[in-house]
Amino acid sequence: MEEKRTINFGAGPAKLPESVLLQAQKELINYNGTGISVLEMSHRSSDFDKIMNTTENLLRELLNIPDNYKVMFFQGGGSGQFSAVPLNLIGLKGDKCAEYIVTGTWSSKAAKEAEKYGNINVVHPKLDSYTKIPDPSSWTLNPSASYVYYCCNETVHGVEWNFVPDTAGVVLVSDMSSNFLSRSVDVSKFGLIFAGAQKNVGCAGVTVVIVREDLVGGALSDCPIVLDYKVQADNKSLYNTPPCFSIYIMNLVLEWIKNSGGTAAMDSLNKQKSSMIYDLINASDGFYMCPVDVPCRSRMNVPFRVGKREENEALEKKFLEGASKRGMISLKGHRSVGGIRASLYNAVTLEDAQVLAAYMKEFLKEHQ
Amino acid sequence: MEEKRTINFGAGPAKLPESVLLQAQKELINYNGTGISVLEMSHRSSDFDKIMNTTENLLRELLNIPDNYKVMFFQGGGSGQFSAVPLNLIGLKGDKCAEYIVTGTWSSKAAKEAEKYGNINVVHPKLDSYTKIPDPSSWTLNPSASYVYYCCNETVHGVEWNFVPDTAGVVLVSDMSSNFLSRSVDVSKFGLIFAGAQKNVGCAGVTVVIVREDLVGGALSDCPIVLDYKVQADNKSLYNTPPCFSIYIMNLVLEWIKNSGGTAAMDSLNKQKSSMIYDLINASDGFYMCPVDVPCRSRMNVPFRVGKREENEALEKKFLEGASKRGMISLKGHRSVGGIRASLYNAVTLEDAQVLAAYMKEFLKEHQ
Repeated sequence: MEEKRTINFGAGPAKLPESVLLQAQKELINYNGTGISVLEMSHRSSDFDKIMNTTENLLRELLNIPDNYKVMFFQGGGSGQFSAVPLNLIGLKGDKCAEYIVTGTWSSKAAKEAEKYGNINVVHPKLDSYTKIPDPSSWTLNPSASYVYYCCNETVHGVEWNFVPDTAGVVLVSDMSSNFLSRSVDVSKFGLIFAGAQKNVGCAGVTVVIVREDLVGGALSDCPIVLDYKVQADNKSLYNTPPCFSIYIMNLVLEWIKNSGGTAAMDSLNKQKSSMIYDLINASDGFYMCPVDVPCRSRMNVPFRVGKREENEALEKKFLEGASKRGMISLKGHRSVGGIRASLYNAVTLEDAQVLAAYMKEFLKEHQ
Repeated sequence: MEEKRTINFGAGPAKLPESVLLQAQKELINYNGTGISVLEMSHRSSDFDKIMNTTENLLRELLNIPDNYKVMFFQGGGSGQFSAVPLNLIGLKGDKCAEYIVTGTWSSKAAKEAEKYGNINVVHPKLDSYTKIPDPSSWTLNPSASYVYYCCNETVHGVEWNFVPDTAGVVLVSDMSSNFLSRSVDVSKFGLIFAGAQKNVGCAGVTVVIVREDLVGGALSDCPIVLDYKVQADNKSLYNTPPCFSIYIMNLVLEWIKNSGGTAAMDSLNKQKSSMIYDLINASDGFYMCPVDVPCRSRMNVPFRVGKREENEALEKKFLEGASKRGMISLKGHRSVGGIRASLYNAVTLEDAQVLAAYMKEFLKEHQ
């Protein structure tokens, strides 16, 4: 019996490059001749030290991270950073105030969590739907804010920023969990960038924090020690046992990105894949409908509805069933928004996207 | 060339059962016919849901956890729980005060971290060395404390509790990171037990929290959401993406424990292995020296010095070199105490301990 190929369009944890899985499998019992698995390896050993250093150096190289930035690895995911960011940065200025741009579920959650630690202001009028980026001319930025926060790609709603907001000198913080390393970024424009690994750079369990050195050291007195940037910076992310295996997987993924041509190659590939799906949606005469404003449609997460409004749910169910029969999984939209969502992270190949596109064409022909 | 067998006596991350590694390797690319790896699996999928449920149910079965206890999985390690415990429990009573029993590095760190959140009292006179458990008759317990905290096994110093402290009705909290599931425990005596997985039950990245239901829900207002017991209890540990692969590895280890005879079998095995080493130390006429009081010598971490005091360091270096030549790794004592430390967690076999014992005998003969 021929084995059915599975194509994973999940929003995260998400597909990993096949070569990464093969190498992890090969090394699982005996890493690099040590006779033990990375799963069993002391985080204080020279072998693990090398994994940590290689991972950090690959991040520095791929993102061209300036020397005055710390690169750290945390547990707790993006949601942990929703607390860590204000706990560490809101005290930068006496007003203990921060500005949030709220463009979807994740920035909304971040803003709500931050209210525990200071005065939080949403810089723009409340959006009636998470399908756009509010025009910068509508923002009211408080120059005495400790930082301005935004989510660079809203995984649930498929809203992605293709420009870096101008904060008139206020420290800029960005959650890049779901588009990290999918293209190049000018890190020097940011005070802090964080990203959970489980979308573009690895598996769940580890979150990268890139922070400008001078912003480290002012944590609030009630900051849990595992979320304190200074403690982790001083200890090179080894204050306590790190999520070793997740860091190791990130190391392998970063090597794969580098060998595949780096962020420039990822950028080009991601544009190609997402354009293929958006073009098809645009040409479907309303059969497929993406609610997101064209300039901020995400290259990472493509949300769309199927059919005319009254037929949506039945047709969408049919669409998902047919996809599943063809080996395509995790295409269901987030439970809060419904519909379909195709996540096209770095490890999703052009061929994977082509299989989806072919199926969408076929489904359109059959049901329009 | 014959492959050298590595025996891992590391204090954590530590040795995993060989069968667990083999199964993880086998399933790494294609888990249970899904066509994807657990590393890529959505935490909202039915496959992962099954892994979570199986893991929780195995914990409940192996430890006979009463129904009125929640079992949860956190990121952030034991050090994360050093903050989470006071953040969630210190408000149980109006005084916001907690009692700590400090018997080594880990309980000392926990007490220091807790001072951020309330009034912390060490219940006994300060110890001049971490080699004993202070006699309960010397303790002053405050009945209006929100909880009493102790570390059941001090990994650095090799001090283990073989009794459950009597707190006269005050909620009891225990860090069991390094002796979790190494023997049975009467969970009903505890308000809360937590344990990092990377010693006895898995790899780094996940921490188990077992907490009595009625203690959940009173977190301080500044508790980071990822450390809030109520949030994680209400969301069955899926408030945000959990460390999926670490939970999966724990699932495999728990199955291995169950198939090996459960906690009773682990208890007996752990006694056998540690007695073998302690007996040898005791019979060495002072050549090997364990500084810990006999009644609280740890079955998990056996710390000892080699040679007469003036020769210690040179001989210890030689001891470690010889061990390394024989494939025995991670026997060096914690950097804060020096000497040798043999960690004999569940996955360390009787044969592994016998190899160490044989080497210790040989080394004694050669150098005494």
